[in-house]
Amino acid sequence: MNEKNLETPLTRLLGIRHPVLSAPMAWVAGGHLASAVSEAGGLGLIGGGYGDAEWLERELASAADTPVGVGFITWSLKQKPDLLDQVLAHQPSAMMLSFGELAGFAQKIRKADCCLLAQVQTVEQAKKAVDEGADVIIAQGTEAGGHGANRATLPLVPAVVDAVGSVPVVAAGGIADGRGAAAAMMLGASGVLMGSRFYATEESLAHPTAKAGAASAVGDDTVRSSVFDRLRGYGWPEPYTSRSLRNRMTDRWHDHLPELEENLTDERERFQAGIEEGDFNLAPLIVGEAVDLIDRVRSARDVVEDVVAEAVELLGQGAPNVSLGSGPA
Amino acid sequence: MNEKNLETPLTRLLGIRHPVLSAPMAWVAGGHLASAVSEAGGLGLIGGGYGDAEWLERELASAADTPVGVGFITWSLKQKPDLLDQVLAHQPSAMMLSFGELAGFAQKIRKADCCLLAQVQTVEQAKKAVDEGADVIIAQGTEAGGHGANRATLPLVPAVVDAVGSVPVVAAGGIADGRGAAAAMMLGASGVLMGSRFYATEESLAHPTAKAGAASAVGDDTVRSSVFDRLRGYGWPEPYTSRSLRNRMTDRWHDHLPELEENLTDERERFQAGIEEGDFNLAPLIVGEAVDLIDRVRSARDVVEDVVAEAVELLGQGAPNVSLGSGPA
Repeated sequence: MNEKNLETPLTRLLGIRHPVLSAPMAWVAGGHLASAVSEAGGLGLIGGGYGDAEWLERELASAADTPVGVGFITWSLKQKPDLLDQVLAHQPSAMMLSFGELAGFAQKIRKADCCLLAQVQTVEQAKKAVDEGADVIIAQGTEAGGHGANRATLPLVPAVVDAVGSVPVVAAGGIADGRGAAAAMMLGASGVLMGSRFYATEESLAHPTAKAGAASAVGDDTVRSSVFDRLRGYGWPEPYTSRSLRNRMTDRWHDHLPELEENLTDERERFQAGIEEGDFNLAPLIVGEAVDLIDRVRSARDVVEDVVAEAVELLGQGAPNVSLGSGPA
Repeated sequence: MNEKNLETPLTRLLGIRHPVLSAPMAWVAGGHLASAVSEAGGLGLIGGGYGDAEWLERELASAADTPVGVGFITWSLKQKPDLLDQVLAHQPSAMMLSFGELAGFAQKIRKADCCLLAQVQTVEQAKKAVDEGADVIIAQGTEAGGHGANRATLPLVPAVVDAVGSVPVVAAGGIADGRGAAAAMMLGASGVLMGSRFYATEESLAHPTAKAGAASAVGDDTVRSSVFDRLRGYGWPEPYTSRSLRNRMTDRWHDHLPELEENLTDERERFQAGIEEGDFNLAPLIVGEAVDLIDRVRSARDVVEDVVAEAVELLGQGAPNVSLGSGPA
């Protein structure tokens, strides 16, 4: 069977068939998800998160011989720099760094013949990342689930494209189907990175209740907040916050952070219990605004193939409601 | 000369040549801007804002016989409902209502054979607006300049499209060129509404310093805040805030609103002086994240024609970095 592909500077650079990347979601994007995405023709990224050497080793092993990448939270990696050597020893196809300065890591990654994907949240960061040696810029909008910042994908992507010359740009945040992928390409992106859509796949390590919750949630109900970072005691620097579904915790504390600090011991206990019980009224269900476009848990392969097929159709046939008429100018 | 048009359900409904609307920016979108946009083939909207009968009469007169629309802030119109009759007497092509319930206005507008454009910021509001009689939904993302809310355009538009059936959807927020317009069409939009791009036109009533500032500003430097509404004493309801360029006022007060309330008398004086002097370190320069894509003040006609020409090319020729290859599936 022959099918149309979307060939872009990103697919050529990474040697992949489809310009679709899965986000390296901490604790959620393990080896099975990453390898399923890569086997479907995209590039799967294991979520290095806050850096647990044992977890990483296990997930890299479960990806086996399928080429996958690994993503790290840059400011966290700085505290455990040995993890980079550990991962590079597995010869990943790509390393993705987000939320912090590349300096100190970029050279080592490039020396290992590994492609460096730098995720940024502003145009200024994009320029800097290119100067520091990024091979690909991932421009992430505020609508993304999980950590991010304040700019939105639609205006951010073309501005980054204009700022970084020939470096391929991947759009992230708010994309969960072929419409979003085709839109991103119109903005000049060479690929898309999706988180929420892969969160709700069979292969993701998210809690089954959370996956089902993502499939039934609506985008109006997400909130970008630092409530859960405070509860978890993660030292996220400004301006980064995390988008998740609203729940009892965000409703109670999002607008009352100083008060949360005063009640931290009790609230952490409640929160921890919520996590252990899989109670997402208390634990974070970490998805972005694109959840409207997700109606069921699927296989990662189906997601990749459907996003590509829909984008191919849109890019080949044109936009759904538009006819290019000829009229008097 | 024949040129390609973008024909959509919106252009057919409104009887216009190009699916491009100019935002009804309060005090900025007067009759000259609105009529220039309509004369270029789009639909220009006069900014009814907080409702100044005399200003409205003058601007409607300056649009003369060119068909234009008028936009109102719905919660403000409720306080001066006679303004609607005043405007409808001019037989505008369309009325746009934003930020509040349509009920009470929708029937009167439709009875006047006037097209009702309802701007919404959530999927829930979109459904409600259709139930209340909107002919067109304008889905506005948080990246927009001026008043708005929290959802981002890229994921909001397809979710609204899915929610409202055959009602045409216009994308607003973050769009200032043909790339954004083409992207919006891929998401299922039937048109685009642009504010910032028309703010920086020759015909806009923005202060010359502000227009030049918009042309040189960067999107990383905008902030969505309620600082200026507090300074102006406008009673905007939650969750609406206004995006503008960061300046001394937002830097000082955005994270310290209760303290601003304590210093309101002094700060209002400073602010008022800033407005009178055209000092945009103090006065708000109201543009959105799309300012990156705006590099000079132009005529409204050039803006409409270039956005359409670029979108036509993208939609006709395909995305810039993508070739639809044939590969093994």
